Amino acid sequence: MNSKPTLHTALSPALLHLYDLNHAIVVIIDVLRATSTIATALHNGAKCVIPVDSVAKCIELGRQIDGITAGERDGMIAEGLEHGNSPFEYPRDFIYNRTLVLTTTNGTKLLHMALDRGAGQMITGSFPNLSAVCDYLVSQNQSVVLGCAAWKDRVNLEDMLFAGAVISRVKDHFSINCDASQIAETVYHDAKSDLFGFMQAKNASHYHRLMGYGLEKDIRYCLKPDVANVLPLYENGKLIVL
Amino acid sequence: MNSKPTLHTALSPALLHLYDLNHAIVVIIDVLRATSTIATALHNGAKCVIPVDSVAKCIELGRQIDGITAGERDGMIAEGLEHGNSPFEYPRDFIYNRTLVLTTTNGTKLLHMALDRGAGQMITGSFPNLSAVCDYLVSQNQSVVLGCAAWKDRVNLEDMLFAGAVISRVKDHFSINCDASQIAETVYHDAKSDLFGFMQAKNASHYHRLMGYGLEKDIRYCLKPDVANVLPLYENGKLIVL
Repeated sequence: MNSKPTLHTALSPALLHLYDLNHAIVVIIDVLRATSTIATALHNGAKCVIPVDSVAKCIELGRQIDGITAGERDGMIAEGLEHGNSPFEYPRDFIYNRTLVLTTTNGTKLLHMALDRGAGQMITGSFPNLSAVCDYLVSQNQSVVLGCAAWKDRVNLEDMLFAGAVISRVKDHFSINCDASQIAETVYHDAKSDLFGFMQAKNASHYHRLMGYGLEKDIRYCLKPDVANVLPLYENGKLIVL
Repeated sequence: MNSKPTLHTALSPALLHLYDLNHAIVVIIDVLRATSTIATALHNGAKCVIPVDSVAKCIELGRQIDGITAGERDGMIAEGLEHGNSPFEYPRDFIYNRTLVLTTTNGTKLLHMALDRGAGQMITGSFPNLSAVCDYLVSQNQSVVLGCAAWKDRVNLEDMLFAGAVISRVKDHFSINCDASQIAETVYHDAKSDLFGFMQAKNASHYHRLMGYGLEKDIRYCLKPDVANVLPLYENGKLIVL
């Protein structure tokens, strides 16, 4: 019998260097809201999503390819961009067959960091595409690193909860010798019956920030499993549906 | 009414730079086993514990001041040192009125890192001196950073559990806008009725490592609250009892 592939969780981009990404599938997790929005845009028929790591690049590339420029800094639409980071900005009648050029505070940065570190494969994960992510990980028989985008390197609750949700579903297929993964699954187990209520009860810092912007609807959507159940795969600079 | 001081938890030394240590009390946490052993040695009458960051310095200083040299690397007594990192090596009839010069894989390194980052005050925390730590933090009305030593920068379960234990006791006295702290308290809440059983059930990585060395007795001791209830305070290069 072959040994199972390993699974690790990096709770912050500042911990990503501790894990060997070269032969791994890296799952980029930025629940509020980058990776939820990526899944949603692709589910609604976007041609692709191009993650870029600066506002300047976003503007330049958007002009070159006639893409929709979008992104936030500190939770608000970045100056010079057309759209924000809310999944509700990308319904089918708007995004279908268009290209979204996206930059965010944490999620797209983590993706580029993982790329620089030689990640074997990259996909993006969020509650809206939870099952697609889990099914893919189980099917590949490869090592996995769950990469939480966090908030400016500080560990956050929602990305850890998603890591825990994945682990609770796929753990029988992996060898997990990773306390961060055990912690994530433990917290998810406590939270799963009411993720929104848990975020509220714990006064999660980014929950609090977004509620302050009047974005309760976004938060509730971003915690809903399988409402945009596609698998965004990074290939040649683009996220496309596998 | 004055606003409450803040409390943050750094789950790994690689996340310590995210927090302002200058006006904070930093609690150095290395449950298995450095800070448990420090509390025990001081509780049993050691004159002081001098944490050093290399085996070479440990040997040199031990010779200069006729101290007991002790420490481990990767969980084993380091070559050239007299003693290891087990609290059971430091009973009163051995350690009373002696100076312990100690170097460990993670705990003493974190302490020196916090020192380099200008920590206002440093104390060490472990279950054996849980109440002393909590009472001190509540009495000082200063910001707190709970610094987990982790394992070679990877987040570990036992240090987070101790952070959670402290938070559960002192939270009313602090303003806590820190997801890592919320996570620590959540996991502690799940674990507190049987900390050893929890570590076992989650197959915590360092638990597993120490069990492999036959150190179950050490683990059980290091998870026991208030059995060496002193407050080790770092002053002029030494840990002394306050």
